[in-house]
Amino acid sequence: MENNCKNIGHYQPLAGAIIEELKTIVGKGHVITEGEKLETYSHDETDAQEYGHSPDAVVLPSSTEETAAVVKLANRERIPITPRGAGSGLSGGAIPEYGGIVVSLERMNRLIEIDRENMTAVVEAGMVTNDFAQAVEEQGLFFAGYPMSLQTCFIGGNIAENAGGGKAVKYGVTGRYILGITLVTPLGEIVELGGKIAKDVSGYDLKSLIIGSEGTLGIVTRAIIRLIGLPTSKSDLLVLFKTPKEAIDLVPEILCRGVTPTSIEFMDMLSIQTSCKYLNESLPYEDCGAMLLIELDGSNPNQVEADLIETGKLCESRGAMEVYVAEDRNNIERIWNVRRNIAEAFKVYSPVQSLEDIVVPIAGIPGIIPELEGLGKKYGMQIPCYGHAGDGNLHATLVKDPDMSMEDWKKNEKACLRELYEITKAAGGKISGEHGIGIKRREFLKDLVSPGELELMKSLKQAWDPNNIMNPGKIFI
Amino acid sequence: MENNCKNIGHYQPLAGAIIEELKTIVGKGHVITEGEKLETYSHDETDAQEYGHSPDAVVLPSSTEETAAVVKLANRERIPITPRGAGSGLSGGAIPEYGGIVVSLERMNRLIEIDRENMTAVVEAGMVTNDFAQAVEEQGLFFAGYPMSLQTCFIGGNIAENAGGGKAVKYGVTGRYILGITLVTPLGEIVELGGKIAKDVSGYDLKSLIIGSEGTLGIVTRAIIRLIGLPTSKSDLLVLFKTPKEAIDLVPEILCRGVTPTSIEFMDMLSIQTSCKYLNESLPYEDCGAMLLIELDGSNPNQVEADLIETGKLCESRGAMEVYVAEDRNNIERIWNVRRNIAEAFKVYSPVQSLEDIVVPIAGIPGIIPELEGLGKKYGMQIPCYGHAGDGNLHATLVKDPDMSMEDWKKNEKACLRELYEITKAAGGKISGEHGIGIKRREFLKDLVSPGELELMKSLKQAWDPNNIMNPGKIFI
Repeated sequence: MENNCKNIGHYQPLAGAIIEELKTIVGKGHVITEGEKLETYSHDETDAQEYGHSPDAVVLPSSTEETAAVVKLANRERIPITPRGAGSGLSGGAIPEYGGIVVSLERMNRLIEIDRENMTAVVEAGMVTNDFAQAVEEQGLFFAGYPMSLQTCFIGGNIAENAGGGKAVKYGVTGRYILGITLVTPLGEIVELGGKIAKDVSGYDLKSLIIGSEGTLGIVTRAIIRLIGLPTSKSDLLVLFKTPKEAIDLVPEILCRGVTPTSIEFMDMLSIQTSCKYLNESLPYEDCGAMLLIELDGSNPNQVEADLIETGKLCESRGAMEVYVAEDRNNIERIWNVRRNIAEAFKVYSPVQSLEDIVVPIAGIPGIIPELEGLGKKYGMQIPCYGHAGDGNLHATLVKDPDMSMEDWKKNEKACLRELYEITKAAGGKISGEHGIGIKRREFLKDLVSPGELELMKSLKQAWDPNNIMNPGKIFI
Repeated sequence: MENNCKNIGHYQPLAGAIIEELKTIVGKGHVITEGEKLETYSHDETDAQEYGHSPDAVVLPSSTEETAAVVKLANRERIPITPRGAGSGLSGGAIPEYGGIVVSLERMNRLIEIDRENMTAVVEAGMVTNDFAQAVEEQGLFFAGYPMSLQTCFIGGNIAENAGGGKAVKYGVTGRYILGITLVTPLGEIVELGGKIAKDVSGYDLKSLIIGSEGTLGIVTRAIIRLIGLPTSKSDLLVLFKTPKEAIDLVPEILCRGVTPTSIEFMDMLSIQTSCKYLNESLPYEDCGAMLLIELDGSNPNQVEADLIETGKLCESRGAMEVYVAEDRNNIERIWNVRRNIAEAFKVYSPVQSLEDIVVPIAGIPGIIPELEGLGKKYGMQIPCYGHAGDGNLHATLVKDPDMSMEDWKKNEKACLRELYEITKAAGGKISGEHGIGIKRREFLKDLVSPGELELMKSLKQAWDPNNIMNPGKIFI
């Protein structure tokens, strides 16, 4: 853990009397204080060694009202609160760096309503994204969010990070589908923002401000979600290229032609091989340096077919080695499974690494690949790369060479990240497209946004959370 | 003007020395202080008698830097600033209620860049929306914003109000297309928010907070706008119904079937007749009580045609009197011209009126029509209705009966509005979908949002604008 916590003395320790009060609020069985059980709540999917920190207690409320009562108590007593979804985050957003209370939303996992007439659903923040997506699909409706961790992550976490994922090229990110939220403010007030409405300028758009604010401005306990018609037709292309550059060069060209694929995912060879090994899966990747996985969907199968053929032909005419069409659901799922498991596979085979999340303008993607290669050479590390190329969002991953000492790695990692972020900024990009700043990137953020913007963020946070109890230390200190 | 300005004593008068300083910043010829010329800047499209107020000076900066220098000066001297676009607003957002300085963006009307590769444009806030739309259309690209006032309104005003308009059913409101903004904060700092990127969670989404904040959190001087491929095929249905109820009942049914029209506009008989009279135009409306104007667009003409036929058949099977297909551009434009000019026509023929902007869940629209009729009867006024039915956004218009005294009208208008808003709230709706709160609706807003939400808005405003110089009195006091 970084040793730059500010104001740690400002917080009060969690006294026994407070724990009793917490038990009164959420029920005895829903307050965890034993060391071993607390461990689960001490980390997310970032390196536990580097970022992990144990809370003093975990509470599991079953309602918005209980959540509000817990926050009110914490604010009164100056105890830090860390809201937590599935713990699948990639920037340390759910880590209780200052101890205090983790508020886990895991019990609030109900699907409250599917309203077909208004094409909306109401869901609690602790519902697993995939469970939600499947439940609405059974009604012939579609939730367009598709984070790669959808089998474990929660809707609430998707909102806190404004999750992107695999379908954002066509459908946009999570925020586009969040019509309303129930928010517990840092003072413990319950506020309903938005509603089942398509447009609204009745005061500030606080809902959009909350989306992506990483739990630092309150706890979202419930959401109204916009559903759309389920695309009835879907087809995928798996396109093999000799080099990453050839694959990436094609991305802006595909997008400029008027057909908007659901996804354009990019994977370099090392990413594919690592995930295939992890899953004991095989894809046709011999001799290939990179792949694009392109999905198209729609309501008209002929149109999807025509777009698919056109896109495939474009790839062939630009030097693709092979173009495979995957039309049956089983094959599509196999390929996507490889894509979804890259991050997990790297964690297993290259545990010392830093998974990045840069996002650049579409036309700037081709320029980024040689920069990544240059950085790898300069700092003596491999930087495999994969991600949502169609969004300009690339998960470059800094991987430690086994021969490098940990001390050198630490030094090189930091210097390499700083350079990577400067390159990203120079290309008109930002350091996080969908994983967030959390603890992991805050020391970089402060140098990459203007002082004026940082000041606006901080003064807003200060105004809403004067005691700085709500997920302190995330995004900035 | 309402007599409830708070803190008027808090502001300083505009001394001669300050006016000289303003002239140094923007140039002598770009500071207006003569009474007659100031009049233009004393009102928007709301009733000038009721809401108008003259500024002490109008400045016309030519750059973001000049704008920032003006704001810095105003903040130092405690002089209220009112940012102004085209003055086409419908809630008093651009009226300098407290006097002081109007900052008119009219000289900042340049199209800086069209970036085909990234499908973006950079434009100054003072560009007329339609000029911008046409300029990008010439490049085969499409700006999906379509406020009814597009021939006069500015891009900056569209952002300040998060304008909706005629294409929002399919394409969403203005905010979806704003990728980045240049903001002059209430302290006079220049901040760049967002960028040419498809997703971003690198800190709070301040850009989305600014969109729709009615110029109370700063002045947007420039925007990066997302463009999409120009739909090459377009066709419109004009569907006649015996009663408003029959027309409106069909709206959720159309939307549930998976085809998403670009627009579903609703007009009752009085709205059509008034606009036709104003334009000296004729539409086939004899005996008809209401119309739906349904537009479909896309890249595949066969698909548009098929969707059009299906939608037309649905209307016929649900009792529509007539279904007209308008396929040539000239006819489509004629009908849309009638739709766009309803508000203007009512201003001419029924100058004593209140144009409303309620928005309700789609499935709740049919329930609203009888409520409007009931309100009209109760308060002795006609309430013609038109608007973006496909969004649930209806422009009900309270029109004064010629026989009613002004005193009775004033009393009835207020009581009727309050009841209308309560009905809207009970239906899960909000009081403004796209026109904003401004001065006109602030006394109602405070009773219609929760105290917690209002407090969040106010504390945010206070944190960013401690001297309350930036468009004070709009949204709330």
